Amino acid sequence: MNRTFRWVGTFTLCLLLTQTPVWAQSRESLYQVSTINALLIGLYDGETTFTDLLRHGDFGLGTVDQLDGELIVLDGVAYHVTADGAVHQLPGEQTTPFAAVTFFEPDLSGALPAGMSLPELQQALDLLLPSPNIFYAIKITGTFAYVKTRSVPKQENKPYPILSEIVKTQPEFEFNSIQGTLVALRAPQFVEGINVPGYHFHFLTHDLRGGGHVLELETLSGQVEIDLTHQFEMLLPNSQDFYEADLRSDDLDEVENPKSTLRLYSTIK
Amino acid sequence: MNRTFRWVGTFTLCLLLTQTPVWAQSRESLYQVSTINALLIGLYDGETTFTDLLRHGDFGLGTVDQLDGELIVLDGVAYHVTADGAVHQLPGEQTTPFAAVTFFEPDLSGALPAGMSLPELQQALDLLLPSPNIFYAIKITGTFAYVKTRSVPKQENKPYPILSEIVKTQPEFEFNSIQGTLVALRAPQFVEGINVPGYHFHFLTHDLRGGGHVLELETLSGQVEIDLTHQFEMLLPNSQDFYEADLRSDDLDEVENPKSTLRLYSTIK
Repeated sequence: MNRTFRWVGTFTLCLLLTQTPVWAQSRESLYQVSTINALLIGLYDGETTFTDLLRHGDFGLGTVDQLDGELIVLDGVAYHVTADGAVHQLPGEQTTPFAAVTFFEPDLSGALPAGMSLPELQQALDLLLPSPNIFYAIKITGTFAYVKTRSVPKQENKPYPILSEIVKTQPEFEFNSIQGTLVALRAPQFVEGINVPGYHFHFLTHDLRGGGHVLELETLSGQVEIDLTHQFEMLLPNSQDFYEADLRSDDLDEVENPKSTLRLYSTIK
Repeated sequence: MNRTFRWVGTFTLCLLLTQTPVWAQSRESLYQVSTINALLIGLYDGETTFTDLLRHGDFGLGTVDQLDGELIVLDGVAYHVTADGAVHQLPGEQTTPFAAVTFFEPDLSGALPAGMSLPELQQALDLLLPSPNIFYAIKITGTFAYVKTRSVPKQENKPYPILSEIVKTQPEFEFNSIQGTLVALRAPQFVEGINVPGYHFHFLTHDLRGGGHVLELETLSGQVEIDLTHQFEMLLPNSQDFYEADLRSDDLDEVENPKSTLRLYSTIK
């Protein structure tokens, strides 16, 4: 707890020096395809091409047509962590059923303290951010003592199983002393059902050989950059599946932070 | 009930003839300032000028800085129904704390049947719309046997009372055999807290002498036009009040459909 507060103290000093007034630009919008609840209930068919998605942002996260793994958009490139743990660059004509991107233009920055777990990192960020009521894109570049990620396997047959069933056997990956980038979003509570309220972290290694949806981590050193985002855009699918979907679901926590014991383990590093 | 179904039958025929594929245009976006829960808890200070708002749409509804009455945007003009029931055109430099607009380009149209109450009209529209999961702008132009509206009085002193307190003494207005336009939105359930789930009707008389937030009506004759809207944009306030707001509220039904007996009655026609 002491460590967290010290970090915030150091951090705040940096912020005052780097904050820039960029509110009014249309590049300051988080652009989203579909809704998180549509994904939770199995609407995995791609709706938007990556060519289209990257017109709305160069930084973000999501998944790929047929729930084929985890998406990380970084520096304008759409990377794909498949269920075998490998990283591929996504072709422009490939599609996504759910993704959220923005043009990353940091308003705040500071040094990443060592020794923080994922909950500690989130707690520290919470103390730092000016409000829980807007959106944030968060880029953390550095070396991590440990990162544990998961991906999800491509679904071949409809009707697709719901996401909370799929994550019960998700492949997971561990990385030690790894260089890479955390690509994260923080959304307000009032977008429940639309996006993930709170934090959502994906990870990509610096050597582009691994990554995924982050389950656990321990920080070592690096740079935190934060883009305050007051605008939000959402494109709803124009599909019969979406039109007819019952979009009520309370599976989100089970999917984002799965606690199941039925897992396939796989370690890259 | 029979009447409703006959209407839908007639209506559907018209739809097939008039539907146009306009999904991909950016003009097909509903643009919103702030959130409905921010308004419910008393964040009435204007955030966006009407000059800016009208860049994002020519049709919609909302309110005015300091909760000064009801807003109707129709044919690119922002009209203001103040608490005395009068209608004014809003100057571009005036601001709104909450509004939602789109460029109205109808995808469906048909004739308005006679003798429907507001719940019956909503029920009939529900049977007609292709999905509860997207947004709709709905313009109903015609003659109404009866319309009952309300407005809300400008709040002069902070801290502002919450909206559910203000509507307990809201001025209300009745119109008989009146020509005018219903300016309505329908939003999906998953935007609860952000906008009004379901229908939200405002009204403006043809002679621009009255209108407001619709409480009751009885249809007579006219034209229904519907704009299917798959895109949604939201601009969150960059203010300390919004940053610090507790945006949880369950007052919406009380405010949209007030059942209080403490009312000031005022009849224009």
